[in-house]
Amino acid sequence: MNEVKLEQLLRQFFLEDIGDGDITCETVFPADERAAGVFAAKADGVIAGIGIIAAGYRLLDPRVEVSIMKRDGERVAAGEAIAAASGPVRALLSGERVILNLLQRLSGIATVTRQAVDLLGDSHTRICDTRKTTPGLRMLEKYAVTCGGGYNHRFGLYDGVMIKDNHIAFCGSIADAVKAVRERLGHMVKIEVETETEAEVLEAVEAGADVIMFDNRTPDEVRSFVRLVPKPIITEASGGITLANVAAYGATGVDYISLGFLTHSARALDISFDLQ
Amino acid sequence: MNEVKLEQLLRQFFLEDIGDGDITCETVFPADERAAGVFAAKADGVIAGIGIIAAGYRLLDPRVEVSIMKRDGERVAAGEAIAAASGPVRALLSGERVILNLLQRLSGIATVTRQAVDLLGDSHTRICDTRKTTPGLRMLEKYAVTCGGGYNHRFGLYDGVMIKDNHIAFCGSIADAVKAVRERLGHMVKIEVETETEAEVLEAVEAGADVIMFDNRTPDEVRSFVRLVPKPIITEASGGITLANVAAYGATGVDYISLGFLTHSARALDISFDLQ
Amino acid sequence: MNEVKLEQLLRQFFLEDIGDGDITCETVFPADERAAGVFAAKADGVIAGIGIIAAGYRLLDPRVEVSIMKRDGERVAAGEAIAAASGPVRALLSGERVILNLLQRLSGIATVTRQAVDLLGDSHTRICDTRKTTPGLRMLEKYAVTCGGGYNHRFGLYDGVMIKDNHIAFCGSIADAVKAVRERLGHMVKIEVETETEAEVLEAVEAGADVIMFDNRTPDEVRSFVRLVPKPIITEASGGITLANVAAYGATGVDYISLGFLTHSARALDISFDLQ
Amino acid sequence: MNEVKLEQLLRQFFLEDIGDGDITCETVFPADERAAGVFAAKADGVIAGIGIIAAGYRLLDPRVEVSIMKRDGERVAAGEAIAAASGPVRALLSGERVILNLLQRLSGIATVTRQAVDLLGDSHTRICDTRKTTPGLRMLEKYAVTCGGGYNHRFGLYDGVMIKDNHIAFCGSIADAVKAVRERLGHMVKIEVETETEAEVLEAVEAGADVIMFDNRTPDEVRSFVRLVPKPIITEASGGITLANVAAYGATGVDYISLGFLTHSARALDISFDLQ
Amino acid sequence: MNEVKLEQLLRQFFLEDIGDGDITCETVFPADERAAGVFAAKADGVIAGIGIIAAGYRLLDPRVEVSIMKRDGERVAAGEAIAAASGPVRALLSGERVILNLLQRLSGIATVTRQAVDLLGDSHTRICDTRKTTPGLRMLEKYAVTCGGGYNHRFGLYDGVMIKDNHIAFCGSIADAVKAVRERLGHMVKIEVETETEAEVLEAVEAGADVIMFDNRTPDEVRSFVRLVPKPIITEASGGITLANVAAYGATGVDYISLGFLTHSARALDISFDLQ
Amino acid sequence: MNEVKLEQLLRQFFLEDIGDGDITCETVFPADERAAGVFAAKADGVIAGIGIIAAGYRLLDPRVEVSIMKRDGERVAAGEAIAAASGPVRALLSGERVILNLLQRLSGIATVTRQAVDLLGDSHTRICDTRKTTPGLRMLEKYAVTCGGGYNHRFGLYDGVMIKDNHIAFCGSIADAVKAVRERLGHMVKIEVETETEAEVLEAVEAGADVIMFDNRTPDEVRSFVRLVPKPIITEASGGITLANVAAYGATGVDYISLGFLTHSARALDISFDLQ
Repeated sequence: MNEVKLEQLLRQFFLEDIGDGDITCETVFPADERAAGVFAAKADGVIAGIGIIAAGYRLLDPRVEVSIMKRDGERVAAGEAIAAASGPVRALLSGERVILNLLQRLSGIATVTRQAVDLLGDSHTRICDTRKTTPGLRMLEKYAVTCGGGYNHRFGLYDGVMIKDNHIAFCGSIADAVKAVRERLGHMVKIEVETETEAEVLEAVEAGADVIMFDNRTPDEVRSFVRLVPKPIITEASGGITLANVAAYGATGVDYISLGFLTHSARALDISFDLQ
Repeated sequence: MNEVKLEQLLRQFFLEDIGDGDITCETVFPADERAAGVFAAKADGVIAGIGIIAAGYRLLDPRVEVSIMKRDGERVAAGEAIAAASGPVRALLSGERVILNLLQRLSGIATVTRQAVDLLGDSHTRICDTRKTTPGLRMLEKYAVTCGGGYNHRFGLYDGVMIKDNHIAFCGSIADAVKAVRERLGHMVKIEVETETEAEVLEAVEAGADVIMFDNRTPDEVRSFVRLVPKPIITEASGGITLANVAAYGATGVDYISLGFLTHSARALDISFDLQ
Repeated sequence: MNEVKLEQLLRQFFLEDIGDGDITCETVFPADERAAGVFAAKADGVIAGIGIIAAGYRLLDPRVEVSIMKRDGERVAAGEAIAAASGPVRALLSGERVILNLLQRLSGIATVTRQAVDLLGDSHTRICDTRKTTPGLRMLEKYAVTCGGGYNHRFGLYDGVMIKDNHIAFCGSIADAVKAVRERLGHMVKIEVETETEAEVLEAVEAGADVIMFDNRTPDEVRSFVRLVPKPIITEASGGITLANVAAYGATGVDYISLGFLTHSARALDISFDLQ
Repeated sequence: MNEVKLEQLLRQFFLEDIGDGDITCETVFPADERAAGVFAAKADGVIAGIGIIAAGYRLLDPRVEVSIMKRDGERVAAGEAIAAASGPVRALLSGERVILNLLQRLSGIATVTRQAVDLLGDSHTRICDTRKTTPGLRMLEKYAVTCGGGYNHRFGLYDGVMIKDNHIAFCGSIADAVKAVRERLGHMVKIEVETETEAEVLEAVEAGADVIMFDNRTPDEVRSFVRLVPKPIITEASGGITLANVAAYGATGVDYISLGFLTHSARALDISFDLQ
Repeated sequence: MNEVKLEQLLRQFFLEDIGDGDITCETVFPADERAAGVFAAKADGVIAGIGIIAAGYRLLDPRVEVSIMKRDGERVAAGEAIAAASGPVRALLSGERVILNLLQRLSGIATVTRQAVDLLGDSHTRICDTRKTTPGLRMLEKYAVTCGGGYNHRFGLYDGVMIKDNHIAFCGSIADAVKAVRERLGHMVKIEVETETEAEVLEAVEAGADVIMFDNRTPDEVRSFVRLVPKPIITEASGGITLANVAAYGATGVDYISLGFLTHSARALDISFDLQ
Repeated sequence: MNEVKLEQLLRQFFLEDIGDGDITCETVFPADERAAGVFAAKADGVIAGIGIIAAGYRLLDPRVEVSIMKRDGERVAAGEAIAAASGPVRALLSGERVILNLLQRLSGIATVTRQAVDLLGDSHTRICDTRKTTPGLRMLEKYAVTCGGGYNHRFGLYDGVMIKDNHIAFCGSIADAVKAVRERLGHMVKIEVETETEAEVLEAVEAGADVIMFDNRTPDEVRSFVRLVPKPIITEASGGITLANVAAYGATGVDYISLGFLTHSARALDISFDLQ
């Protein structure tokens, strides 16, 4: 998490919600009226982004004091307090919605990630995310996945190579595509190849891929493909995997399971902020 | 929709995903290699944000040409093409994920909004959104709600007054809170009061609220509260309303039902982009 | 007033005036040389934007201390001190001009607004502003209008509907235009209709406008139009109104008088900053 | 005028006024409805900023076509058309207010500058501006001064030295202050010294100032001070000069008269935009 | 290369150099005066960034036409033309310096990189860059390295792990440091370990590092260390390597040699722009 | 130096290097682990930009404490400590590279400037910079030149006039070009004319140039040209001047020698940061 970037994002989000002013609070409350409130979970889940409360209020009014009761990655039960804030009431209420919108979304992602991880039991398989994140929130959403016990796939098009069917078609073969990439990119970049058939898996192994992905395969297919891949090449299953079948994929021996729904369709974790 | 703001957002999102470059495409494809592809729905739903395809590709490479087959608000069935794009393959593939991430999220919001609207049948009741939107995406998500047949509540803290329990507690009464606001704000601002009891509803009517919200009430309570509110005061039900019970609320005669889950927990509509 | 936005504006303004450095102060004064000075009114007026002094100096050098002697909205006489600042002399002098330029402009707006308000005597009529503000300064200038006892009209094209002749011409009638808007916009938006004739006023009443504006009418016309408009519809006179005739309009019973010159042609209030 | 900077400013101003959308135009007009309109002066004056019409509309919708009838610096009479625009009606109307707010302000500045210049008759004296400009608009307002026949003083604290009483007091004398500056700054920077007495003028001459300013002096004082200053040192009168007495100052033989009111208190020139 | 980011950078650079306007060109040339000119190398070297000419002029004035004679990575001899531009003379001259400053710096980097690569002869060793780039120009400077035949090391702290002495000291051992990282980071990240002794090299091999760097070692040490490292682990020599000794390092069999001076101390390649 | 602008630049540079996070430090070190380290010169030179250490760390973590041992402009010997920093180790290491990249570059510029200045001995001639700076770093690099004892030429196209051959060719003569500029620009702008022959020098003197530059002339030519130029016109030699011949130019009596290589080709001064 880059704190300089977090601050930049929070400024953008407060400008979006507060605009030229919170016309209700500024009209009703005197500038120095103070209050205190509690952030509490209203459903069971896993917390992610708790630091946003202090980082956000600091921008609105440095006099707001925040104390944290739950750390990122910690499980909470419905009704449990997760943080408390006190200070000028205008800041407390004007900032509440942006902070909650972020905290609920990130905690929702951590919660569903944790569900997926728990379904794998003691398998060595890891859950990871994708690039199917909300535009503008990738740093935060990928952080939330780690709070839920998941791992991060590449962050963007710039920090990892993913060779898909279109690239392969243009180059002529997986071997040619991998070779083209290896000839032009440095030693700090990993190369993943997307495969759908046994022949492609073998070709990717031969081509020296760092990671081989099995795209939209059944658990049985994944199991048989995994056996074709020698160490230290890493395997990944992706496509069509849900909470309902993730355990079956986890039993295949694959190294990573990537799940787009962690970030593109997570339900927000219900969290409230109430003045006392 | 402000096109100047949309362009600014798209630049931010492409910087997030592409960073210093799409290392796969730039390595594999020559700069002038061209291709064509189709955006297609992979599930039934309602489209929102179709204009993002052309607006996005224009920023990456003005040579990309886009043709639109489905308009915003239109229903699509799984398998139907919604747009086609042709031009330099690097731009087509480098921009694909950001465009899809937006299009899927917005269409997901339109789709669930349309579900809620349809559940109301021919009731005069309208579905509306809340401020529980994804930080950074409010303009787009609120637009998506309208594509699904819903209506927009206030856009932020700056364009409408919402008097809640904390404001009322400080002022002493609903009447005093509304009066305080009316004395300081101009004639283009609407004032909504949040109520939970019959007494509060009557007090809000008396105070001259423009909109009265019934917070976390059962359909029966809403029905009885609605009868207490004379025209032209508008009524709104909010809190705890889901697709399972929205029809019951729609049968109460209330004017608006606001639904936070439209934006904070919508599932993305599955949309693909495939080169041909 | 959104403090996050104010800080962003002040950064922009200091970059404009200071550029790569204040070459006089940096050359003449050592970095730690300290001084103290006083902001004083050099003409009678009403203060607006006093908080800008502290907010501005905080960005340049957090060691500057500011004490405030006059609050926003307070009247000052020529010669009266309004604030004092002490700290590193480089910051005091490098920031002086931007702070004065803002403070003088905003106080000028508050002063002329107060003149207009005072001319209305004990009429119930309110003075309000328009969108004829200085580009980039709308939040601040509209705030200054409230410091002078005025009220804010809509802040932009996004937070209120204004149906003018062009819209009406396209829709066919005022009724059709209002209906088109009502069918597509939610319940937190007010609709104002611009009228010039008795027929149009009656049509706007019938159409259910929230606010009816009488555009470029004489006081007599306004008086007769006001009688056509039942409560709770709000009336507004606009166009061609000056300090010379505002009292006549105030005597018509109209609810609001909007004045473009408050912001587009206000004279700055003369304020000085002198080191002691 | 830097076109890259102008575009950046216009984007900022459209975001301020249009926000998340022009809810009236987007609701009333179909996206492809077209119209044409004329910008016309409603008072006599001098035009400045005519290029903003095309630069602004280009950002909103590149299909808008603009034709210009009056150039910057040209005089217009009330009623004269200055430009015409045609294209999608939404863009025409959504952009109208920002464009007019700028054009009116800049033309107002050019108009009052031209008045001041004309009052000087055939004197060799030049009118110039100050740093008392609207924060955020300095490039545009200083350009407007040149459209009215005036000249630009320094643009900020970074591009010219102005030695005032505080600097002199710290250094001990004008000579020491000028010396301190000359020792540390390069050869492309001009040094101006502010003076109030004959002794100070003589000291500034001796110190080798490039420009000597007579601060808040009567025309008679200015006349006698001017005689003390040999070529090629430039003289400037500043402070307390208005349209009522500018001719008297122009008759003193001073080289420049700087006028803060050109930018801090100019009345907007009334300009309208009407669809046809 | 991300074109959206390039445009953003170029806007920033033109604002820096042109500020509120090119006061020489705007004063001397009419707006429509046209000219043509040629960019030519004044020294032997390798070109990088040739696309900046067209991308830059497009922002200043879309009427400028650019034709390219040398591609990125191509060698040029002193006196050879590399590109030609024609269009409005104001744009040609106002943009010249920013474009040359970039082109000269990037071509200087490509040139010195090519020198280093050529010194390696037919060794399999590759030259790569570091994070010692000019702040704000990393994307461009790393691109320039590839134009000279070099390869890119990680782009920042976000896209690759580099375990150095401080990290190892805290974790207790190389093995513990690598393990800590592997347990928390996903499969698309490479881990490099910095070593200085044979023992550390062996420990890094054992720990499963992806890349092992030999820091500040002599060619002989590097040669002996390389033999300790089995495939597919990659080796890198870094620290104290210059054009004078790079060939000796290239003869050691190491995979990569990283050179900070490519970017932190490259001499600009002299390139001129002359109107014809 | 504008501190508001410095902070803006540092934010940009940290975003570039840290991106979405320092994946090594965040994985290895706990958030509250503390450390202390020293910045030390590894070569002889002159320091510039020492304030960047504190300004940079303040943005990353306000708990970092910095103490400074060498001031800007001070000479250092290899091995000498220049500053110390202590605080959270994550911030210390995550910020190290950006701070060093800037400090090394600026100190490299100050060092080579000082070399040039020293080579002039007790000549009255001054060394100055050019616009051949790194895009985005002009404020900092020009500041570094002053730390080395040099002077600043104009900062951009906006704050000084430079009349070159192209301008002269268009206007017809030097006299006409200077006249065109004088007629349109105010009294705070200096005009420099570039000359190559005795005839041009005489023409520039006659035309009233403030500064006359001798472009690409030998020391003998410069010496004879200098004699043609009466006070207070300033003379400048430029083009083809290196450390090898700068003393010969300094002996000509010219006022300024401008050197592009100070900024476009300076070698970074080696500076290290080591934890203790």
